[in-house]
Amino acid sequence: MSDTSPRPSLRQLIETGGEPVLVGITPPRRSTEPEQAAEIAGRTLERLAAVDVDGLILYDIDDESDRNPEQRPFPYLPTMDPATFHDTHLAGWDRSVIVYRCVGKYPEADLADWLRSVDTDRVLSVFVGASSGDKPVHTHLGQAHELRREIRSELTLGAVSITERYTRRGDEHLRMLDKQERGVAFFISQVVYDVGATKSMLSDYFYACRERGVAPRPVILTLSVCGSVKTLEFLQWLGVDVPRWLENTLRHTEDPLTESYEQCVSNARELIAFCRRLGLPFGFNVESVSSRKVEIEASVALAAEIRRLLS
Amino acid sequence: MSDTSPRPSLRQLIETGGEPVLVGITPPRRSTEPEQAAEIAGRTLERLAAVDVDGLILYDIDDESDRNPEQRPFPYLPTMDPATFHDTHLAGWDRSVIVYRCVGKYPEADLADWLRSVDTDRVLSVFVGASSGDKPVHTHLGQAHELRREIRSELTLGAVSITERYTRRGDEHLRMLDKQERGVAFFISQVVYDVGATKSMLSDYFYACRERGVAPRPVILTLSVCGSVKTLEFLQWLGVDVPRWLENTLRHTEDPLTESYEQCVSNARELIAFCRRLGLPFGFNVESVSSRKVEIEASVALAAEIRRLLS
Repeated sequence: MSDTSPRPSLRQLIETGGEPVLVGITPPRRSTEPEQAAEIAGRTLERLAAVDVDGLILYDIDDESDRNPEQRPFPYLPTMDPATFHDTHLAGWDRSVIVYRCVGKYPEADLADWLRSVDTDRVLSVFVGASSGDKPVHTHLGQAHELRREIRSELTLGAVSITERYTRRGDEHLRMLDKQERGVAFFISQVVYDVGATKSMLSDYFYACRERGVAPRPVILTLSVCGSVKTLEFLQWLGVDVPRWLENTLRHTEDPLTESYEQCVSNARELIAFCRRLGLPFGFNVESVSSRKVEIEASVALAAEIRRLLS
Repeated sequence: MSDTSPRPSLRQLIETGGEPVLVGITPPRRSTEPEQAAEIAGRTLERLAAVDVDGLILYDIDDESDRNPEQRPFPYLPTMDPATFHDTHLAGWDRSVIVYRCVGKYPEADLADWLRSVDTDRVLSVFVGASSGDKPVHTHLGQAHELRREIRSELTLGAVSITERYTRRGDEHLRMLDKQERGVAFFISQVVYDVGATKSMLSDYFYACRERGVAPRPVILTLSVCGSVKTLEFLQWLGVDVPRWLENTLRHTEDPLTESYEQCVSNARELIAFCRRLGLPFGFNVESVSSRKVEIEASVALAAEIRRLLS
């Protein structure tokens, strides 16, 4: 990338197979006072100023306790609507955002309103279905896809891809193809710790695309540091397969943050080499599943490191 | 290793946590004429002359068709007794050998005779149990262990470790500990292609040893190149988990031999770094599961490359 030409927008990067680097954040709790939310947003933008990221992902958090009977290591607390957080507090962010939508939370009319109003130059979205099949929902994923196609097909839409679903059922790559047929332009993975299984999913996806004569869509690979045993347990509660050897290492080390950071860098290297060699468009997203300051700061450092690895 | 001090024997390397490099070979078919067997042995020693390996593994091949109802990609043909092959044709080999013993094939008296006669300075052994539980056997693994303890406890004995059994049942590391309690001084793994699962097994083994206050035994990690789709299918028939992404790569590439060779080198690097950091004694064994000349030659080259990686 030459210094004189401006970096393309996230939309362009996705369309042209660029290698975007994103940072994923969770909006503040819904109970947060406006001044405090503004302060949180300000601190986030300050941290990100040092890193050349192509976009911010704003998660939409749903109560997923139905999905997992085990006790959630961190309590579930309702968070601000990511679109509201963006509009109200992130005016200082001049790059793209990807607004997640747990579509089951919203009546169709509300989703339609938002789709009509959204600034599709700056905002992309990822629709997420319900966390379990028997959860009552306002809008099903299929309905949400149809709604977008009808009202706002210019909104660049992504979908999630989950390595662990690939490991259990073996068909995640086919689900990705289905979503792609419904207009999905990119994928964002769940947090990746099982690199081998992720490579297998990507490989199966790549060759299934080739067989059908369609171009593979970029897969944004999500990495997340793990600074404590509690964070490790939260990742596992969220459904992330952490390889047993790494779990052992993180449980026995004095410094899980550094250990997991180094592992994330090594995983990024391996995934970059793999995707480039295969010819699969990809990018990275870095998030912190915990709200501890050291873990958030390590995430930002990781995003910067990945940007260097990609250059 | 200084050039002036002789390299320790395989026994010493195993006792002191050295990092031995071995090459595994299958004796010629039982129907081979003596002159031809001598020629095969000569060619083997010639190839190995260029590589500084610490020992030769001589496999004892059993008809394992009971284990897998799928058709065996390469036909099963009875092979020479590895001890006989060693005595008769490998006099030119001045380093150690590890003679495998599929103990179920031998009546206890025969096994006892061999145990009494074996030169324990040059010969180590690995006892292998039956390939399936309902196979009729002459001697059970437990009996063989007891026999050795009674008649020839100075024979350094190894056992196999199987990553895929760890993946399926999760207790392979505990089986290793049991074998260790019965006098096993080292382990030799089945062919490793699933490095992540192998690291997990090694990690669980290491921490289980620590918990019981016993020293972990060296685990010799077996690598094998894969020069064709037929060899790939034979590896899978043998029960080796080849990661799906690598299977796809090997099926789609023009040059599976180079591809798998590079993957083996990369796997060796990862396993070396992992074991050294963990503090687990280890070594490598390279074998070719096919008898094709290019694959055998690539195996010898791989052994040489691993020797360089370890130095």
